[in-house]
Amino acid sequence: MVPTVEWKNGAVRLLDQSRLPSQVEFLDCRDYRAVAQAIRELKVRGAPAIGVTAAMGVALGAQSLPADDYGVFVKQVDEICDHLAASRPTAVNLFWAIARMRRTVAALADRPVAEIKRDLIRESQAILDEDIALCKAMGRHGAALLHSGQTVLTHCNAGALATAGYGTALGVIRAAWEQGKQIRVVADETRPVLQGARLTAWELMQDQIPVTLITDNMAGSLMRQGKIQVCIVGADRIAANGDVANKIGTYSVAVLARAHGIPFYVAAPYSTIDLATETGADIPIEERNPAEVTTIHGSHPVAPTGVAVYNPAFDVTPADFITGIITERGIFTPQALADAFSREGAAGKSGLVS
Amino acid sequence: MVPTVEWKNGAVRLLDQSRLPSQVEFLDCRDYRAVAQAIRELKVRGAPAIGVTAAMGVALGAQSLPADDYGVFVKQVDEICDHLAASRPTAVNLFWAIARMRRTVAALADRPVAEIKRDLIRESQAILDEDIALCKAMGRHGAALLHSGQTVLTHCNAGALATAGYGTALGVIRAAWEQGKQIRVVADETRPVLQGARLTAWELMQDQIPVTLITDNMAGSLMRQGKIQVCIVGADRIAANGDVANKIGTYSVAVLARAHGIPFYVAAPYSTIDLATETGADIPIEERNPAEVTTIHGSHPVAPTGVAVYNPAFDVTPADFITGIITERGIFTPQALADAFSREGAAGKSGLVS
Repeated sequence: MVPTVEWKNGAVRLLDQSRLPSQVEFLDCRDYRAVAQAIRELKVRGAPAIGVTAAMGVALGAQSLPADDYGVFVKQVDEICDHLAASRPTAVNLFWAIARMRRTVAALADRPVAEIKRDLIRESQAILDEDIALCKAMGRHGAALLHSGQTVLTHCNAGALATAGYGTALGVIRAAWEQGKQIRVVADETRPVLQGARLTAWELMQDQIPVTLITDNMAGSLMRQGKIQVCIVGADRIAANGDVANKIGTYSVAVLARAHGIPFYVAAPYSTIDLATETGADIPIEERNPAEVTTIHGSHPVAPTGVAVYNPAFDVTPADFITGIITERGIFTPQALADAFSREGAAGKSGLVS
Repeated sequence: MVPTVEWKNGAVRLLDQSRLPSQVEFLDCRDYRAVAQAIRELKVRGAPAIGVTAAMGVALGAQSLPADDYGVFVKQVDEICDHLAASRPTAVNLFWAIARMRRTVAALADRPVAEIKRDLIRESQAILDEDIALCKAMGRHGAALLHSGQTVLTHCNAGALATAGYGTALGVIRAAWEQGKQIRVVADETRPVLQGARLTAWELMQDQIPVTLITDNMAGSLMRQGKIQVCIVGADRIAANGDVANKIGTYSVAVLARAHGIPFYVAAPYSTIDLATETGADIPIEERNPAEVTTIHGSHPVAPTGVAVYNPAFDVTPADFITGIITERGIFTPQALADAFSREGAAGKSGLVS
């Protein structure tokens, strides 16, 4: 796999996912505003990937700050952080990664600014490296859930492309495949932005993992025909009670899975869990441009001009529809996770889970 | 509304629905093979509309037959009927309309061929006129189910464009609207061919009925938010036990509706009920070209080249997911309809319902 995001020659290099699968092109962001714009325009997407990218954006922005004085420097880094944090509202990994970069600056208050700048690059690289390690750990845990002969339905792209590499939901599939399990994947195309068709299908084909593409509205029929044995999706934010925000359409998949007695798993790193968000109802859901629905690739119209459109990018799946949450620390029921976090919370932890 | 299909200057004139909403163009079919091709290529679609169109195709084909001898004529009409019947497999109205045209020929065995030819045009026009009348009757019955302030979800296009005019599911909505009920419509875009985005949204906007377009995978989330009060869809075939084949994705809508306690109605003329088909499992489901999924409008790729695709055009919703079937004779539970038909069957009727 080509890297989703990397620090390269003093720039943040992104694989431009808006052009996949027709073109494999890279975008070198040379200032933090370009990074924020790339996140906003879905050139990089996927909760863990935008977390890593935003962290690198903070490091990038910090490099060009002229201040030698820590007080001035920290204020300017804060502005960079605020700008990047405003790029998308739903995935909590973005805020988590930015918060971690702010903490790095705070922890180095007694050091020279030049040293802090170097440490910010190091910290963003650490977030990237950890992300891949977390995905592989999720893969090891989750692979035990899959068996040869099974077909796994996934929605959107929770793959290498949604992370620094390897993937969350697709990481689980990849790990099972690497263990020699003969599994098949059914990928929802995931309208409106078609991440399933453009990214998941492409990514799995690169790895020669058998994948069949369907439109989102076919999933129920396949389940009824007994053609799906398990569902695994990613997450953009998990509330303290175990409710999960993920790509629009995830909730429908969860309802359909329950109606057919099919287990429904969410694969996500701990950083996706947001203790500051009590329930799914408190998760801000991004509404995007109607043109994503009324056109394909922003240019080919598929609906009448001027039609009213509803275009939420995410929906919330209540905890009780979720069989298990696959994390780097193991597989938990949403309830067990909520209990664990309420204990951690009681021990003085609050806000984002680090 | 512009007519979906009409007999015009000795040709079958179709509104080319594959070009909507960007272009409003008509296609004059001057021989029955062109009619079959137009059905196959979805230039005309919707179960009742393809029934009417096929009937006109039979009449058209019959006009140019050179035979004066009834025996030769009837054999050639049969070949025309067979050709048209092979255009699409799922919607039973196609076979019903063709069977009715065959019966017309059979009933006129003692008449001159020239007279039969005229009667075939008359019969196809009668099927068209009846179709509009049936839709209006469905509308009258169904409108009673809708109340001001409600939002109705519909899938695909079961509108004027799917019939000779007025529509089945949209006919019910149209009738309620004409009665002054302030209702709103949410239209599933209906991948892969986007009949909801291209046709339903367009048709409702023409009539100034408020419509909001969503991608198919948003329906569940809207239901959960309490934004949908009732679902109404059309049907391509209703089995004797009340199972309904309709556009792919209908089954998912039905499962989601049940999970949210939302009534789910099917609007269809009696001719959609096929006594020869015992259950939904016996309904042949058309699988169409993968390019419908991997490209938009056959030319703009949205998936990797060579990806495996599953593309069934229809799915089956079991009878017990259906609150009621709205027909020209009233609203029935699937069970009541099945009971009524088993009585009719016992009285000597079998095969297609006339």
